[in-house]
Amino acid sequence: MSQLLRVQCFGVTHDGFGAGVGQSLERPFGHGANPADLFSWAGATASWPHRTDPGGSRGLDDYFTRDFARNIGAEIMGRNKFGPIRGPWENHDWKGWWGDTPPFHTPVFVLTHYERPSFTLSDTTFHFLDATPAEALRRAKQVADGKDVRLGGGVATIREFLDADLVDTLHIAVAPIEIGDGERLWKSHTDLLDRFHLDSVPSPSGVTHLLFWRR
Amino acid sequence: MSQLLRVQCFGVTHDGFGAGVGQSLERPFGHGANPADLFSWAGATASWPHRTDPGGSRGLDDYFTRDFARNIGAEIMGRNKFGPIRGPWENHDWKGWWGDTPPFHTPVFVLTHYERPSFTLSDTTFHFLDATPAEALRRAKQVADGKDVRLGGGVATIREFLDADLVDTLHIAVAPIEIGDGERLWKSHTDLLDRFHLDSVPSPSGVTHLLFWRR
Repeated sequence: MSQLLRVQCFGVTHDGFGAGVGQSLERPFGHGANPADLFSWAGATASWPHRTDPGGSRGLDDYFTRDFARNIGAEIMGRNKFGPIRGPWENHDWKGWWGDTPPFHTPVFVLTHYERPSFTLSDTTFHFLDATPAEALRRAKQVADGKDVRLGGGVATIREFLDADLVDTLHIAVAPIEIGDGERLWKSHTDLLDRFHLDSVPSPSGVTHLLFWRR
Repeated sequence: MSQLLRVQCFGVTHDGFGAGVGQSLERPFGHGANPADLFSWAGATASWPHRTDPGGSRGLDDYFTRDFARNIGAEIMGRNKFGPIRGPWENHDWKGWWGDTPPFHTPVFVLTHYERPSFTLSDTTFHFLDATPAEALRRAKQVADGKDVRLGGGVATIREFLDADLVDTLHIAVAPIEIGDGERLWKSHTDLLDRFHLDSVPSPSGVTHLLFWRR
């Protein structure tokens, strides 16, 4: 079985934005894109990685959050998913948005033009890589222990890997909001249909799960 | 995290039958219930446990087949799922429908009033148990290594465990056929709604996935 590159549980607005403009420490998703609007469907499920109480739904949406870690051996993410800092690292204080126990539990490769030493938090190790998408994927597959690689986003990173035709499957959760401006994944998801099959699955929670896999 | 008892990928007809009448070696699902009608949705997916080639779909239906083994540490099944033989075992030649590599990969407890020694095929060990549903579940949880237990069916076994209120989640795939007679899971799935939440999810493949979880 070959190793796949999978986008999972990636939230966009109905008009195709994964984040608004003006990302900052206070607004990881920028202006207009309220994380609650994008991710409340996931937060309500029993298998949401950040859940601290034993409750949560076990219906359709839970199949997506419970699949988040299944057979994943590494993640690749863009620098803007890792944090709001741009340009050279002034210091190494910033260790991601996720506190002492990041929800990845695998090696994570952060794509950046600026060198930085690897570090480990709990069972997640962050590596920093100035590389093409193909080279980054090769490195991630090497350490993934035969498992798949998750492409974590953000939007620009997913677009780069799509342009390089390296993505095997995408699960995009479309929230019923429009924000008009920001980091746009697509004008229309039909752009992908020349290369991918699509199942479009409306959820009782209000989001629509778009599931793409290679033709 | 407590251990759940989960029914997964269990197929029924639109009129609620999991099998027709007259199970036999040639017709594991009896008259009228063609396995292809009940399970073609699953067989088309990339993660179908019996798949031998690398193809298959990776859309909605695949989330259900890829979840079949996730966090499962044991299975409980009724004797009629194990085989067509009734009454005392005349010999121990019958070892299930699944050949030398059963798709379970965990201990399996077969409920039967007739004693029989355990045996192992590949990484699946079959135990034979004359026990109440509660006792069978206790035994299965003991060997499940902290994981969940799958309730494999058939219909009579699922009904017994539902009657004993031991089932935590059910995934039932309803095929768009009617057979009029046989082993009936329900007259209407709404019978379960006093105890369970329900997501009803139509699939592009033609089946409707009913996802129940405890209120």
